[in-house]
Amino acid sequence: MTESIIRSGVIDADVHPWVNGDIKGLKPYLSTAWQNHFDGRYSLPDHPLRPPLAKSTSIRLDAVPPKGGVAGSDPYFMKEDLLDQHNIKYAVLTSIQAAKTICFPNPNEATTLARAFNDYFINEWLPIDPRFKLGIAVAAQDPIEAAKEIRRVGTHRSVVAVFLPLLNILMGNSHYYPIYEAAEECGLPLILHPTGTEGGFATSLQFAGGVPSTYIERHTSFPQIAMANLASLVFDGVFVRFPKLKVLAAEFGYSWLPHLLWRMDQNWKQFRREVPWIQKEPSQFVLEHVRMTTQPAEEPEKSKYLMQIFEMIHAEKTLMFSTDYPHWDNDFPSTTFRSLPDSMKQKIFHDNAAEFFGLESMIREELESK
Amino acid sequence: MTESIIRSGVIDADVHPWVNGDIKGLKPYLSTAWQNHFDGRYSLPDHPLRPPLAKSTSIRLDAVPPKGGVAGSDPYFMKEDLLDQHNIKYAVLTSIQAAKTICFPNPNEATTLARAFNDYFINEWLPIDPRFKLGIAVAAQDPIEAAKEIRRVGTHRSVVAVFLPLLNILMGNSHYYPIYEAAEECGLPLILHPTGTEGGFATSLQFAGGVPSTYIERHTSFPQIAMANLASLVFDGVFVRFPKLKVLAAEFGYSWLPHLLWRMDQNWKQFRREVPWIQKEPSQFVLEHVRMTTQPAEEPEKSKYLMQIFEMIHAEKTLMFSTDYPHWDNDFPSTTFRSLPDSMKQKIFHDNAAEFFGLESMIREELESK
Repeated sequence: MTESIIRSGVIDADVHPWVNGDIKGLKPYLSTAWQNHFDGRYSLPDHPLRPPLAKSTSIRLDAVPPKGGVAGSDPYFMKEDLLDQHNIKYAVLTSIQAAKTICFPNPNEATTLARAFNDYFINEWLPIDPRFKLGIAVAAQDPIEAAKEIRRVGTHRSVVAVFLPLLNILMGNSHYYPIYEAAEECGLPLILHPTGTEGGFATSLQFAGGVPSTYIERHTSFPQIAMANLASLVFDGVFVRFPKLKVLAAEFGYSWLPHLLWRMDQNWKQFRREVPWIQKEPSQFVLEHVRMTTQPAEEPEKSKYLMQIFEMIHAEKTLMFSTDYPHWDNDFPSTTFRSLPDSMKQKIFHDNAAEFFGLESMIREELESK
Repeated sequence: MTESIIRSGVIDADVHPWVNGDIKGLKPYLSTAWQNHFDGRYSLPDHPLRPPLAKSTSIRLDAVPPKGGVAGSDPYFMKEDLLDQHNIKYAVLTSIQAAKTICFPNPNEATTLARAFNDYFINEWLPIDPRFKLGIAVAAQDPIEAAKEIRRVGTHRSVVAVFLPLLNILMGNSHYYPIYEAAEECGLPLILHPTGTEGGFATSLQFAGGVPSTYIERHTSFPQIAMANLASLVFDGVFVRFPKLKVLAAEFGYSWLPHLLWRMDQNWKQFRREVPWIQKEPSQFVLEHVRMTTQPAEEPEKSKYLMQIFEMIHAEKTLMFSTDYPHWDNDFPSTTFRSLPDSMKQKIFHDNAAEFFGLESMIREELESK
């Protein structure tokens, strides 16, 4: 049965394509003026802390395209190596490079690059295979321009989400409202990702209580960013103001969610006078509007804890499978959550993402055309 | 059976006594020079965000002493109202006011006030009843002076811990090492508490991802401070360098711990090259060195989740009962965790704290003298 779910096609909610040469690779999508502007500083900023892995790279070595270029840069190779080999029905692409525009304090630079990345993937990737879907990147440094960008390319048939790298401003803040308005209008969910959390930039996201001193500590603390932003979204009433807005917290884990749901509800019982715009339990907003991806699959001390956590977080509704291909720690469908009941697997590996990304009518059309 | 545990005496790991008049009340414990220094600014700083409770106070109204003064300020009334009434064998006192010295960027002011608070409680409270135990406060702004203070009063028979309000410096940082060295030498565990998290001071602790805009959101995010500091303590090797050091995360909740333990261990498997001084699973350091208090008791969506979480966090070892008296949301022994198995209740309501605070020999002596 489990095999059959994978056979019928899995939706992969978090895949990272790459542009060779960073900004250099975007040249065809930049005006001459902007090409000159970036001339001599084509590299996107890197951070001094690197994952201290045995192989000293954060990329699967076997994901490097045989025809050259960096891992994730060849759509034809990814088509074979990821989509065909693992029977991925749709892969939602989000560009880590595009998200790195968060490192530019200059909003014009960030906005221009995000736009060029979007045009690059729309032109160089989406036509290659209808299974490729795109989360367009926007630069939160200029929310008005970001909203324009969402309206410019957000109606493309294979654009299914808005990838929103965060500033050190929590998501409940009205700074982001133009982006939310445009995303809601275009029916596109938002994707958060631990971009900007790895440190080393002037604009890096802050963690609680101080500055982590090692990468392992920083990586352990990534979920703080998701927790903080969910609390902010809920209590500042974003889902009241934008009732159709949906948010995916990708690659932040999920075992922290029970605590957050319960603490929010408990606090709401005590402090609701402060937030009269919140008229139902905060956990309800999360369950209705927020989803999480599975990768990296968590490894509890005992395997039974996984099903307990899944029940606590309503995983049959809130979780979406992702590979995080081509990263070093990626998960594949055939080896992830093998002991889950089929009904839950169907939801996590397919149905939740189909609904979240609005792919259901597309799936029906394809079935009917067969 | 449960009744018998309470009858034999409970240890309360987090109780807050108060000094009427803030700094004014400390006058007998300040030199004339320091009295003059603080003259006209006796009030400790407050924060603009207050718990938006129906009663507009964070104190139990019935905890206000009948003879006058603020709640928690009369040791004779607390003796009756808390110790006698709820059969508390020992109550570990930590002063929120003393912790507020964290708000003074001037280390001399903070150090002086912490010392005066310690002398106040040692003189005005500890002699009243041997059930009162004290967590002496130290000012982390000057760790050398803090270490001296620990050595000055840390050997008092009823001093059982060091209350360490945190700066915006994570606990793994060597800034705090003189404090750890003195605490270890005196056999005193450290107590962390959400002091400095409520916002509004120049020195308020930062949260992940930005500045929360409401009290309810900030309160929801308090546990980030505990999570961040446990990861910092573990990965920076504090428990390797100070193998006898113990840490209590008081009033931060506990349902977030499974996630933290698993993520730390998973990351250690992948990134251990970066932290060669960590020679065993990070979760083992937490289970050996870190404890948490129960208050505020968490309220999961289904009551069965509580026992599942307790199993995941090894609650029979890591949890210690606390009332948080005289705060608005305090828990009492007879109404908390009523469905727990007796063996676990014995650990949580008594044994864990007896071991953690080094009270076992005192308990034996008292039993023998009866």
